[in-house]
This record gives sequence, structure tokens and C-alpha cells, in this order.
Amino acid sequence: MTARRAQDVQRAWSTSGARVERVDRVLVEALAPTVAVRGPEAHHLRDVLRLRVGAEVEAFDGQGRYARGRIAAVDRDAVTLELGEPRDSTAEPRLRVTLAVALLKGDKLVDVVRPATELGVARFRPFVSTNCEARELSAVKLGRLRRVAQEAARQSGRSVVPEVEEPVPFARLAAEGAVVVGDPAAESGLADELEGLLAGPAVTVVTGPEGGLTEAEVETLRAAGARAVRLGPRVLRADTAPVAIAAALLLLEGT
Amino acid sequence: MTARRAQDVQRAWSTSGARVERVDRVLVEALAPTVAVRGPEAHHLRDVLRLRVGAEVEAFDGQGRYARGRIAAVDRDAVTLELGEPRDSTAEPRLRVTLAVALLKGDKLVDVVRPATELGVARFRPFVSTNCEARELSAVKLGRLRRVAQEAARQSGRSVVPEVEEPVPFARLAAEGAVVVGDPAAESGLADELEGLLAGPAVTVVTGPEGGLTEAEVETLRAAGARAVRLGPRVLRADTAPVAIAAALLLLEGT
Repeated sequence: MTARRAQDVQRAWSTSGARVERVDRVLVEALAPTVAVRGPEAHHLRDVLRLRVGAEVEAFDGQGRYARGRIAAVDRDAVTLELGEPRDSTAEPRLRVTLAVALLKGDKLVDVVRPATELGVARFRPFVSTNCEARELSAVKLGRLRRVAQEAARQSGRSVVPEVEEPVPFARLAAEGAVVVGDPAAESGLADELEGLLAGPAVTVVTGPEGGLTEAEVETLRAAGARAVRLGPRVLRADTAPVAIAAALLLLEGT
Repeated sequence: MTARRAQDVQRAWSTSGARVERVDRVLVEALAPTVAVRGPEAHHLRDVLRLRVGAEVEAFDGQGRYARGRIAAVDRDAVTLELGEPRDSTAEPRLRVTLAVALLKGDKLVDVVRPATELGVARFRPFVSTNCEARELSAVKLGRLRRVAQEAARQSGRSVVPEVEEPVPFARLAAEGAVVVGDPAAESGLADELEGLLAGPAVTVVTGPEGGLTEAEVETLRAAGARAVRLGPRVLRADTAPVAIAAALLLLEGT
């Protein structure tokens, strides 16, 4: 009973109605009338949520489609699902937000990927800039970030798992849509740019490491068309800033 | 050298100019021409930051005033500061935001208090509602949350330390200014209410525990004048929602 309740947070509200309804969700490789789930996802359904034959589930493919169904069989190496028609998720924002985040120390990127995935960020694009103390992202850490994105997608009711890309050097950072960069010396605030940003199809938000982006790096971005914005007189930590900007954009974009 | 660099994140940008300038900050009980700092704050200056006589510091009183000065003496039980004229902080938002947050499991409130303090929240008002698994906040946990608020104020360049109040039952929850509550069934989105909220002097944001506020609790708030807003089709965790709403309000309030 206790184990069951502790998992409540891992269940997500259904996207199918105005009133809240919770159903257990599972990430699958592809949606089909019958799907065998193995590995950690099978363990989650069988041993953590303790679901049995007949239990209702929502399967999602990580690419934006989901299907309702039931558990048809529970075996030691697999949980078999019988699923209905796949549908397109209605939980995705219209605005595609890419977070271009500098590598941070320790596990701080986890504290970016988890809430930003819940908020609806489309993609994470880590980069290495002058002031980064962390110069690379190990395969273990990259794998962990990708699992965090999967878990957060499952919990938040998204059927898209945002991609966490391999890190690139700052000089090779590519952007999609309008580009925003925080700069304490900028004349505009986020409020000044908000309407224009929300009108476009996509925004890339660039935020620096603990020591900040250098003035030269901000200048490079501005020269390439980025909009520099002040984030106010208070200094946000490197893991707070990208989530805060994503929150302002995605809570206001109006889906 | 390494220990010194690891503390960079604890230094804050000065609020005194447009260009970024970092100075070590220290919380003091009261601002005066000569102040003896003892206890953990003295340890921080002396043993962590390793500041010596003559080092420049910014002292703040937690109530909104600060003073620049220098270290005049370093002794085993105290660090003595010589400070200039106290000034009113310019780092505070115009909008007073109170986060009325339900008690959360484990240390999740730390993940609310830290970023929300950086963002400029004025006050935390914890409460216990129907679906709270945590029914009380121990003195140890409350003390920890207050230290987190102090640290985050120091790091973010604020001279106000937001108060973390003792928890109250939901029925005794009091509000300042306009009240906002997240409700998946609401007709308005945050975007619809934003202009009105930013125009007022104060906003209280009410967010529930992991299991959510009950419909009766939301109805109680609405009957008392709260504006219910949808937060979009994605489900935000109980620790993400209050920070996200605070970010949208405080990044856009335009100081």
C-alpha cells in the first residue's frame, strides 16, 4: 500500500478530458495493437506500480503519439499490452522551445531537464563555452539525462520525449527560431520581447555556465541576431535561469 | 585555488552598476559602521571564501538594506567588518509574490524555496491540505528552509531574505493581494490573467501537494475571490508548479 501510494506522482493526468483522470503511462518503442514491454519499463509496470492483467494503461511512443489500452499478460521477462488506435498527443505546446544550456557542474543539468520537460521544452542542446568547468558530458551522465527526460515526459502526460543532444562547442551551437540570451547589460527585458517570441514557431534560449557567458560570447550571439534580455536585478543560478525562461514562455504560450 | 573557484557561485553580481561586478556578500543582524560577524557567516567568510583583512564585502540585513565595506579584522570567533552608509536595495521586485505552498514529501520544499528566492519571491506560506502526505514541518526542516532562503538571497544579490512561515491548516490560509490557484478545469490560462496580476501590488500563488488540491479546496479559494488558471495540458510536479508561476510573474513584472 505504501509502495503503491509513493508512486502516485508517477501517474499522470489524462489528456482526454477537462476533468482530471489519472492513468499509468508507459513508454514503448512503437505503438501497435499488441506490444511487449521489456526491461526497465516492464519492471516499472510489474514491480513498482504492481499492475495486473486488465489494468488500464496509456502507452506513448516518445514521438508524439499515444494509445489507451490494457495489460494482457504479465510474465517474468515482459508485460504485454493490448492497445487501441494511436492518437496524436494534444499535450504539446505550439511553440517549440530549445534550451541551449552550457554544461554545468555535478548533476545540475538534471535539475534543468526534469522541470523543463514537464513545462514542455522540445529539445536540450548542451554546449561547452569558455567559463564551463565541466568540459564534457560522460556517456553515463548523458544516459541519465535522457532517462530523466523520459520519466518527466511520462509523469507530465507528454507523449514526446525531448531529445537531449550530445554537447557541442559554443562555436558550433546552432539555433532554431528566434534566439534569446540573458545579458545583465541588455536594454530589453523579457517582457519587451515576449509578444514577438510567442508569435513565432520556435525559440532557442541560450544560458551560460556558473561563471556566465563571456561578453564576447554574448556579442557573437547578438551579431547572429539573438535578442539579449535582462533577467532583472537578481542573479539567477545557472540551473534556475533556463527553467525560469522556459516557464515564462510555456505557461504563457496559450495551449 | 580550487576551493576558491568552487565558491564563485556564492558570489553575487553587484547591484550598483549596469556592468557585472562580483563581490562577496554576508548577512548581518544589523548594519552599523562596525559589525562583528560570528557563527556560520564568520566561518563562511574566513574558512570558505578565505577572505583576509582589507577584502571588499557587501553586508545585507535581510530586511532590504545593504552596505559596502571591508574586512577590518579576522579572529577565531569573529570577523569584523567596517561598513559604509546603508542603502536601500534596488534588487527587489515591485510585485510582492507570496507562495502559499502545500507541504511536500521529503526535501521537496527546498527545491521550491531556493529558486523562488532567486526569482524574487517575498514570502513562503506553507500549509497542510487534504491530500498532503506530510502533515507537519519539523523544526529541523523549517530551519533548513530558512537557511536555504538566506543562502539564495546572498547568492542572488538580494538584501531581503524572504520569510518562511510556520505551516497553517488550509482552512486558516490567509492571502495578500490577488490570489491565483492552478486548476486543470479552469477556463482561463495564466496569459489571460497576467496583465491584471502584474498591475497589482501583490499576488498570492496557491499550489497543492503531490496529490493536488481537492475540488472542494479549489472551490473554497474561488469563492473567496481567487482566480483559477489552467497551467496548460502538461502536469507539473508539485515542486515545479510554484516556481514556474513565480518565474512567469517575476521575469515579466519589469523591474
